[in-house]
Amino acid sequence: MSNTKIRVTLWNEFRHERTHEHIKKIYPDGMHKTIADALQKQGCITRLAALDDPEHGLTEEVLANTDVLTWWGHCAHGEVSDEIVERVHRHVVERGMGLIVLHSGHHSKIFRKLMGTTGNLRWREAGEKERLWVITPGHPIAEGIGDFFELEQTEMYGEFFDIPTPDDVVFISWFEGGEVFRSGCCWQRGKGKVFYFRPGHETYPIYHNANVQKVIGNAARWARYAGNATPNTCIWAKDPLEKLETGV
Amino acid sequence: MSNTKIRVTLWNEFRHERTHEHIKKIYPDGMHKTIADALQKQGCITRLAALDDPEHGLTEEVLANTDVLTWWGHCAHGEVSDEIVERVHRHVVERGMGLIVLHSGHHSKIFRKLMGTTGNLRWREAGEKERLWVITPGHPIAEGIGDFFELEQTEMYGEFFDIPTPDDVVFISWFEGGEVFRSGCCWQRGKGKVFYFRPGHETYPIYHNANVQKVIGNAARWARYAGNATPNTCIWAKDPLEKLETGV
Amino acid sequence: MSNTKIRVTLWNEFRHERTHEHIKKIYPDGMHKTIADALQKQGCITRLAALDDPEHGLTEEVLANTDVLTWWGHCAHGEVSDEIVERVHRHVVERGMGLIVLHSGHHSKIFRKLMGTTGNLRWREAGEKERLWVITPGHPIAEGIGDFFELEQTEMYGEFFDIPTPDDVVFISWFEGGEVFRSGCCWQRGKGKVFYFRPGHETYPIYHNANVQKVIGNAARWARYAGNATPNTCIWAKDPLEKLETGV
Amino acid sequence: MSNTKIRVTLWNEFRHERTHEHIKKIYPDGMHKTIADALQKQGCITRLAALDDPEHGLTEEVLANTDVLTWWGHCAHGEVSDEIVERVHRHVVERGMGLIVLHSGHHSKIFRKLMGTTGNLRWREAGEKERLWVITPGHPIAEGIGDFFELEQTEMYGEFFDIPTPDDVVFISWFEGGEVFRSGCCWQRGKGKVFYFRPGHETYPIYHNANVQKVIGNAARWARYAGNATPNTCIWAKDPLEKLETGV
Repeated sequence: MSNTKIRVTLWNEFRHERTHEHIKKIYPDGMHKTIADALQKQGCITRLAALDDPEHGLTEEVLANTDVLTWWGHCAHGEVSDEIVERVHRHVVERGMGLIVLHSGHHSKIFRKLMGTTGNLRWREAGEKERLWVITPGHPIAEGIGDFFELEQTEMYGEFFDIPTPDDVVFISWFEGGEVFRSGCCWQRGKGKVFYFRPGHETYPIYHNANVQKVIGNAARWARYAGNATPNTCIWAKDPLEKLETGV
Repeated sequence: MSNTKIRVTLWNEFRHERTHEHIKKIYPDGMHKTIADALQKQGCITRLAALDDPEHGLTEEVLANTDVLTWWGHCAHGEVSDEIVERVHRHVVERGMGLIVLHSGHHSKIFRKLMGTTGNLRWREAGEKERLWVITPGHPIAEGIGDFFELEQTEMYGEFFDIPTPDDVVFISWFEGGEVFRSGCCWQRGKGKVFYFRPGHETYPIYHNANVQKVIGNAARWARYAGNATPNTCIWAKDPLEKLETGV
Repeated sequence: MSNTKIRVTLWNEFRHERTHEHIKKIYPDGMHKTIADALQKQGCITRLAALDDPEHGLTEEVLANTDVLTWWGHCAHGEVSDEIVERVHRHVVERGMGLIVLHSGHHSKIFRKLMGTTGNLRWREAGEKERLWVITPGHPIAEGIGDFFELEQTEMYGEFFDIPTPDDVVFISWFEGGEVFRSGCCWQRGKGKVFYFRPGHETYPIYHNANVQKVIGNAARWARYAGNATPNTCIWAKDPLEKLETGV
Repeated sequence: MSNTKIRVTLWNEFRHERTHEHIKKIYPDGMHKTIADALQKQGCITRLAALDDPEHGLTEEVLANTDVLTWWGHCAHGEVSDEIVERVHRHVVERGMGLIVLHSGHHSKIFRKLMGTTGNLRWREAGEKERLWVITPGHPIAEGIGDFFELEQTEMYGEFFDIPTPDDVVFISWFEGGEVFRSGCCWQRGKGKVFYFRPGHETYPIYHNANVQKVIGNAARWARYAGNATPNTCIWAKDPLEKLETGV
């Protein structure tokens, strides 16, 4: 495991924060800036990128220098170019870039492409209470979190959540209104790791919460690539490793 | 579990069998016809569909009357229309249609869309021997298969196979030339079940093999939808099931 | 898949129902009898067995004629003989007998032996409301169940539930008092399938609930062995299947 | 993630190396010493323990100061005391001590207790060639390993290997004699991580192999506890977190 600093790029749709006064007050420089500040304190090198940047801020060069990418989108999923989605996908599955998808990113093009499912879920915006229970206490993403943590006011996401069976489920949420949700889910895709983390509605100060910040930092450390260096391509293994008796 | 007969649609690119004399001799009416005959003997209702049929033979009406779809493609993946791929995908994840992807279908649009990965692998065509070991002997797809079965001459597919961690791995193959491969893999996607089954190169009489036919029949029974009837959509759960104290 | 009837043996500690008047009223012949009646209506052949029967009612002959065993225990886990636990374990992992562990069976010797973990959990007996959400709608154990079902009054079980990561989670419970729980969990153990189903406290009429009965019937059909017939033993494969070049 | 050094205790049956001249030549101070030397070079703090030490060298104090325990046993599994097995089990599931089980440890009491299965497999001792393929190239245990690595002469272990479905499979082995095997498998058990690694027969210099040493070091880093600090016990949550409407 490398001891060099993790390079995290924080991608944000960055529209709500510029158009809604209430949200601007919570996140004057955008949700991605708030998360970036928290990750810097945890020792990460951070970079911001947004939908309205050229190439959405995700040039080949930026991605090639990104260990872990976080993704927040909501109202403008359709404006993300398919070409950039292909590029991000390639960096995840072929190179092993980690991806942390936040909250309403469940419907983003990149998440649906990596999952193969719709990402559909049940939802309600009523400012209710959420309690996230740790169900895999030995998981590195749960490091430093107790049995559970609470968010006083959140948008509700409920099951059935249309995702493939996760490799690990770290958190399950309880909602005051009667629903449950798999709120922290891990998957391997090619050489890359993907973490979906539910909290994050733009109208509440979720990304200022210390537990939320800790989980995102843990996830960045978990998602960093640490496998083998062989390219993930189709390989014509013309010459067998062993002598064939029956072959032609 | 319903006792009515399973309706299986067998989709085939159906090009090799019409253009190559050697292959035509093995599969005069196409590989899909050989598989269909075997499934009929196992009590299934079958229907054939091919790339060059109108709408590739996969109209809304055909799919709506299909419990399980099998997919064989190789040289013409790119000719499959994106619209039909979307349609098949929808029937799998939203309605629970089972999907059995065969051999070179690992690179088909529908498989890559459902997996979220490249489907890349290692390969060699040298007519070598393959031995498929059962690693989950209690799995319904292994019903009636012994510890292993052999194929005297096959194309080789080797790891790393770029797929998401399967929910179940039923078979692992040993190849004479020195490779191994996860040859029978199960995934849930939305309401639907997906099974990938490796055997099947067009230049060998693989689909005439009794064990191969038995596995495909087992897989059809396993993949048939047997869950709940609720649509898989996003649901606005406006009214909470419980009274909110903290909500707005 | 066999069409012969499933032979289910219902094992019950059967103490509470004989010693507590309130419980006797709900289950005059024991909880196992109530479940057996429900399974018979679903086409199963049933047999009752109890802790105080000779050999706990689980002789070699009984087990050899059992496709699926259900297990309910609570206050007398320690009175179950280790020899019978070994016997049940052997029938599950070596022969493929299905096992359905109910409610407080999470601390039974057989469940802990099959899981390798403590089965510890959080609990409270306050007669609160439970809502079981289906999170795998295509799973055969969820057949005929809607998005969720409710139990008006239950004992609470909450996370962290110390079990190995399940192969499938079918239900997650929401509790009025603020907890969540993985209430329907599937595992493969050797040739056998194991299902843990949470509902069932003895002081409430849980096993009279139509949804609970449906789920147990679904689980019995799912857990029935349908794999290959090879014994699960260590095998000395003295003679290699292939000629060795480098061997000694 | 802590940057302090990992404390690894290497447990060895340590009988073969003292009684067989051929084996003594390969491992003059025991296989555990060879592995310990390799781990020290990778920055671990190591300690040796053996069956014939008092309490098998695994006192409460030793375990309480162990982050990761490795286990090698073969001919004397039955001589390991049940009390020590319980103790090791408790440190894994309740405290989160990592456990790396090597080769013939598949039949050790502690492995079978943690798995819930028999650990049975197919085997042959003929000095044949083994090739371990990486099937999860993004896994930290595969760090620095290429597409595969080879062992020129090994004992063969083949499927069916009676283990629960692993959370991750890192390596699948190809054997010259015709078998395959899941040679690197990961499981979570309670708060602890378990890794089974196949290579290691005592009559070959397997633990001198650089790739084998690298994998064991990677596994030690992966298995170190990094979750939350809450004890893994049953918790009587007498007072609900939320006010009950329907409770009693």
